[in-house]
Amino acid sequence: MSSRFFTYIAGNTGSWRISRIHALSGEGLESADRMDIRHDSIVDLPLGARWMLRGVSSNARYVTRQEQSDLAALQASLGRPEATCAALILISKSAQWWDLAQDVRRDILETQSAHIAIGFKYLPAIARRLHHSRDLGEPYDFVTWFEYAPAHEPDFEMLLSTLRATPEWGYVEREIDIRLRREAEKTTREKQ
Amino acid sequence: MSSRFFTYIAGNTGSWRISRIHALSGEGLESADRMDIRHDSIVDLPLGARWMLRGVSSNARYVTRQEQSDLAALQASLGRPEATCAALILISKSAQWWDLAQDVRRDILETQSAHIAIGFKYLPAIARRLHHSRDLGEPYDFVTWFEYAPAHEPDFEMLLSTLRATPEWGYVEREIDIRLRREAEKTTREKQ
Repeated sequence: MSSRFFTYIAGNTGSWRISRIHALSGEGLESADRMDIRHDSIVDLPLGARWMLRGVSSNARYVTRQEQSDLAALQASLGRPEATCAALILISKSAQWWDLAQDVRRDILETQSAHIAIGFKYLPAIARRLHHSRDLGEPYDFVTWFEYAPAHEPDFEMLLSTLRATPEWGYVEREIDIRLRREAEKTTREKQ
Repeated sequence: MSSRFFTYIAGNTGSWRISRIHALSGEGLESADRMDIRHDSIVDLPLGARWMLRGVSSNARYVTRQEQSDLAALQASLGRPEATCAALILISKSAQWWDLAQDVRRDILETQSAHIAIGFKYLPAIARRLHHSRDLGEPYDFVTWFEYAPAHEPDFEMLLSTLRATPEWGYVEREIDIRLRREAEKTTREKQ
């Protein structure tokens, strides 16, 4: 099961350089130079690290069969050589959100907010991996990692601002937006 | 967040006496005399314990708003003095199940199998608490705790045999059925 766990470690090592940590709502996070991404569940904060966040790549919670196959046909993998820009978006939703029934959450997420449809428009340029963290007792409910080429940075900004204007975001209580860069030649040394 | 974690510890302490451990499919579990239920996530196996299972009480994954309110109106709490019988049912579903889209899983679970409707028929006699364990890296995907009075034991057997005959159970790869009893007068000493 450990193969579905990921840990994002902010400190002084890792191939991704942290360029910005911006708290949109709720408390912020300590600044750090670099981020190391481990494909495992790390228990103890490594020496020299400032903080870490764990998440698990789990089953899809909202997509329908049609959406699932449309996404699978178009989405790109992480680790593309040209994708030297990344973002780590940390989100927690309210207790009210988590108490809602499945059909009500789906209605807000897709019928009212078009979350899946909006993400689809940016494929394959923007690749992502969603991690569920709430049931691990982590400080954020969701940790999402995005990768894209520098040319698609305006698209990524548009994706975020569109999502942030949806009814779904009315349930977001905490959000931190972390941006990262890596040197193109370091791709082969990536641990992922 | 720790308040949503539970750990079931089989060993020689705890107010529940284990009367049977039956593996229906997949590997079995070592026998033990008693079960201790801790409202926390325990990391190290306590001294004298044979095994332990952790789970988290999470948000509902399938119920609609109507089902959620119907269930809330009728379901009983755990810890009723007369509910001296308990069962701990451990289940893992196949990789094929977890790869299915949400609408397909809901269709199998409720439209084809009436899982929620079947459980509803046994309320309020049979109280339960579902724990999600898959994303914690535990050996079972689900750990469900049931409590009922001795008079309702035949109802509980009927509930299980009805569920086990559904299309949903075609996706169950491992299942262990553990039965427990407690003395009625020990209710006030319960840790839950």
